[in-house]
Amino acid sequence: MKETRERLEALRDEMRRVNVDAVIIPGTDPHQSEYVSDHWKFREWLTGFDGTNGTAVVTLEKACLWTDSRYFLQAEQQLQDSGFVMMRENMGNDPDLRQWLAQELAQVEDPIVALDGRMHSVMEVNRLEHWCGDNGFQLATDFRPSDKLWTDRPARPSAPAFVHDVKYAGEDVESKVARLLQLLDNVDADAMLITALDDLAWLYNLRGGDIAYTPVAIAFGYVSHKERNIFIDAGKVTDEVKQHLRQYDIHVRDYDEVEHFLSRRSEHETVLIDPDRVSDTLAAALMCQKVYARSPIADLKAIKNEVQIEGFRHAMERDGAALVRLFRWVEANADKGITEMDVARKGIEERSKSDMYTDESFAMIAGYGEHGAIVHYEPTDATAATLQPQGILLVDTGGQYLDGTTDITRTVTLGNPTEQQKHDFTLVLKGHLALQRARFPEGTCGVQLDVLARLPLWQEAKTYGHGTGHGVGHFLGCHEGPQSIRTDLNPVVLRPGMITSNEPGLYLAGQYGIRTENLVLTVRGPETDDFGNFLQFEPLTLFPYDVRLIDRSMLIQEEIDQINAYHQMVCTRLTPLLCDDEAQWLAQRCAPI
Amino acid sequence: MKETRERLEALRDEMRRVNVDAVIIPGTDPHQSEYVSDHWKFREWLTGFDGTNGTAVVTLEKACLWTDSRYFLQAEQQLQDSGFVMMRENMGNDPDLRQWLAQELAQVEDPIVALDGRMHSVMEVNRLEHWCGDNGFQLATDFRPSDKLWTDRPARPSAPAFVHDVKYAGEDVESKVARLLQLLDNVDADAMLITALDDLAWLYNLRGGDIAYTPVAIAFGYVSHKERNIFIDAGKVTDEVKQHLRQYDIHVRDYDEVEHFLSRRSEHETVLIDPDRVSDTLAAALMCQKVYARSPIADLKAIKNEVQIEGFRHAMERDGAALVRLFRWVEANADKGITEMDVARKGIEERSKSDMYTDESFAMIAGYGEHGAIVHYEPTDATAATLQPQGILLVDTGGQYLDGTTDITRTVTLGNPTEQQKHDFTLVLKGHLALQRARFPEGTCGVQLDVLARLPLWQEAKTYGHGTGHGVGHFLGCHEGPQSIRTDLNPVVLRPGMITSNEPGLYLAGQYGIRTENLVLTVRGPETDDFGNFLQFEPLTLFPYDVRLIDRSMLIQEEIDQINAYHQMVCTRLTPLLCDDEAQWLAQRCAPI
Repeated sequence: MKETRERLEALRDEMRRVNVDAVIIPGTDPHQSEYVSDHWKFREWLTGFDGTNGTAVVTLEKACLWTDSRYFLQAEQQLQDSGFVMMRENMGNDPDLRQWLAQELAQVEDPIVALDGRMHSVMEVNRLEHWCGDNGFQLATDFRPSDKLWTDRPARPSAPAFVHDVKYAGEDVESKVARLLQLLDNVDADAMLITALDDLAWLYNLRGGDIAYTPVAIAFGYVSHKERNIFIDAGKVTDEVKQHLRQYDIHVRDYDEVEHFLSRRSEHETVLIDPDRVSDTLAAALMCQKVYARSPIADLKAIKNEVQIEGFRHAMERDGAALVRLFRWVEANADKGITEMDVARKGIEERSKSDMYTDESFAMIAGYGEHGAIVHYEPTDATAATLQPQGILLVDTGGQYLDGTTDITRTVTLGNPTEQQKHDFTLVLKGHLALQRARFPEGTCGVQLDVLARLPLWQEAKTYGHGTGHGVGHFLGCHEGPQSIRTDLNPVVLRPGMITSNEPGLYLAGQYGIRTENLVLTVRGPETDDFGNFLQFEPLTLFPYDVRLIDRSMLIQEEIDQINAYHQMVCTRLTPLLCDDEAQWLAQRCAPI
Repeated sequence: MKETRERLEALRDEMRRVNVDAVIIPGTDPHQSEYVSDHWKFREWLTGFDGTNGTAVVTLEKACLWTDSRYFLQAEQQLQDSGFVMMRENMGNDPDLRQWLAQELAQVEDPIVALDGRMHSVMEVNRLEHWCGDNGFQLATDFRPSDKLWTDRPARPSAPAFVHDVKYAGEDVESKVARLLQLLDNVDADAMLITALDDLAWLYNLRGGDIAYTPVAIAFGYVSHKERNIFIDAGKVTDEVKQHLRQYDIHVRDYDEVEHFLSRRSEHETVLIDPDRVSDTLAAALMCQKVYARSPIADLKAIKNEVQIEGFRHAMERDGAALVRLFRWVEANADKGITEMDVARKGIEERSKSDMYTDESFAMIAGYGEHGAIVHYEPTDATAATLQPQGILLVDTGGQYLDGTTDITRTVTLGNPTEQQKHDFTLVLKGHLALQRARFPEGTCGVQLDVLARLPLWQEAKTYGHGTGHGVGHFLGCHEGPQSIRTDLNPVVLRPGMITSNEPGLYLAGQYGIRTENLVLTVRGPETDDFGNFLQFEPLTLFPYDVRLIDRSMLIQEEIDQINAYHQMVCTRLTPLLCDDEAQWLAQRCAPI
């Protein structure tokens, strides 16, 4: 890795030139996106490591990269001879970034820690500033080495934006903006700076193709009672988009103009800033009053309207039919040398048969045998295992359709399941079913329900290390907030219209992984005089659980009834989309247990 | 209520004299105690209302008292013609204290809101200060009308303190202080001001009789590496106590000296202050550095040691035996005209037969029929219902023993239970049992487990409005923190050695109330390589559930086994303490279902 070593030394030269002792380089973009376009992969360019989670720190003597357990193997390989040492996040032995940095800088006189404030949220910089203050360090937020060193930097993505038709979105821009302004009024804000790409896409009913898996266009927004703006590369603005924006009085400005635009806001304007989503640089550019609060758009877009919900239902039918074809094909070919990558490619092929499909909502996790135990495993041609007609295959996959986003995990046997496999599969399924049939009062948060998915495992001293549920966007990010079902104390309550995943799992290193995931819609349940109103979940995802992996003796009647009712619904809804052979296969899979 | 009207006018004269527009009068004492001695019942003296929760606010024109639903009836009666209007907390129609005050003072020029800072925590005053600032009000924290107006004020309680023998406490003062100082070091504090009476009682192994239900002495403490102090009325310090304090180098100072003492602390000393427990006046007296943090003593005393746990087990046996005699007596006399008050008196009589018993841990809630549906109902001779040989009786009661504190609720039928009663009782029991048999990983908080107790009710669109579990002190407060099992997002994790209640319920207004409560000990469960260490609960309380109220068809085998195993343990443990007739009665109640 001579190349990365040279880049590292060039960075150190630059650090010396401007008198900086340490620099922090995250893997994000100016929009705090989950998936980042190549234009902003400076950390990857510098280190050679291309995982989605990784933060590099460089001092004049040393260089480290922190990542999580998903990437330990990959980072170890990619960082070889790069000059960077891998540090394991949340592992007892390795210091965390701050501990390490504090130690490295302990002997330096008045050390300066630097970062590029465009890539860090207000909140992150705030925390770092406090930490630096406590340690007697100085924090510089205007160090932008990528601009100077990265000479072969890819251009900003230039995919055309397009209008997300109101027949899918269910609400026009006028109405969305009016509701947003109302929420701004409630917190005495006049305007909002919008940097999260999915927030902006939702608000303006716009989509794009700039980012993998999430159909958004790179842009900023600024909305007040007086004006509506979008900051976007002119090349993305097709005539259709231009007309759409004009219809709603949305002023098109150049993407690079945003910082300057913000710096000229009236000091009498009060602007809402989401401190977790807006970059420190943009927040600093605003010289007016600020209200720091979670994006009200996140709250608005989390509640799906009736049109969106109907869209989800249709997308689930198409997705379920594609999965029937996929899994039937896998079953028929498990003894013919197909690999995990073949499964992933076949999934795309089957989904593509729908003209509402645009892309996967994330790279398929097809984990056969021990690969299934690697929670965020993503096969590549280099690593893909060849399937055998035995053992367990975990498939976590989702599609982007114009009318909805899907995300499903099914774990299936390819033959001769063991008693242990059936036992573990049934434990996970019991948790999944318990959460899915839960009823709960209005005002309940996800953290209160999380245990329902975990308890069958906990009772046997087993558990899983990831969350149970995340929000899902509508033809937008497959992971969105603000609600979640996790052990974290997230105070956001579950509301009717929210769509959340339900995905308990169990992972036995070196053996197999099990996960069962549906998307569920929060709907109104019984309303009572004495005990208030209740909510419950409606499963949206349509695909049978693999009953061959169920140990029926572990189920109570309520669970058996629940499985049979779900399978009946799956069969009824998917059959019209299938040919006879496929329908027969599905009917067999959905037979009452 | 001519008397309270005169007192109210005297207060207003005083307000005019010192130029105050509104005064806030809480029902607490300088220690933020749950139960308050007569000496500090100024709000009761002023308003006539003697409920435990109530805050009065007086302006020059109006006077109101806020209380919660437990006390609506009582407050309505007691405030008649008092000049005070009752305001209902957390009820849609009534404004809250601040809303009301903001409205009342809207027309006043530069209004001054006053309070006695000795009776309000730092946190409360802080919040009020912010609120006053936002509204353009001034807050005066040194208004002490009780000192001047309350001429017939009862003296401070003068019960002698006594040593809580290390054979019960399980740890001597030297060790406790050393552990506290270690925790202070961890947050860079040199000293701690201790104002919570139970914190101080735990630390110094001292008890007293100044407060109803909680065996504590009125005192303050101040501990640092250099000195240990107690501020206490000399009359409480018996020779035994004097010797005990001398043994551990604890300096005895006068109770009233504390403020002056604090004002002379070195400015180089850093003092830990629990902002929820220390009064604003005392915190303000300290001119040195302060660290605001939850009392580390709360964390230390929540984890019971082996000696305390053994003590709890013994106390539970004695308590269970007393309850066998009580409930047997109730059953035999339900048709003989006994009242709820007779049940409460009989409970004390039976517990008093143990020489380890010192007091109830709270006033017995004996709620017959519809009284059971009033969550915090406490019978008085005036209100007590007469039992009949039918219907449901809810008894929530606890005792203070030298070796442990008990708190139990049982709901029993007095004859001919209806199907609905059995159905509801079984729902509550299913939740209680589910929580009690839960296993969970280290790091789990109560809010994550709360749903286990509620789910059977939720599934039928029913619920209860109170928490599921509170911590319990060791021969100390029946309610103590920091852990809880509630819907609130309390971040305190459950740890081995914590004792918490498990008390789901169901209340049907005008009909009956059901609650089933055990105290449970958090203990270590399985330890695994792959999934970490697990914890679980051990029920400490020993008394059978009323199986005559169980609808067996609603139970799964696991629940039946759990009930039978528990009843077998209860029978085995209590029988040695019972005479033959009592043992026979218990055996019948504990027969396998």
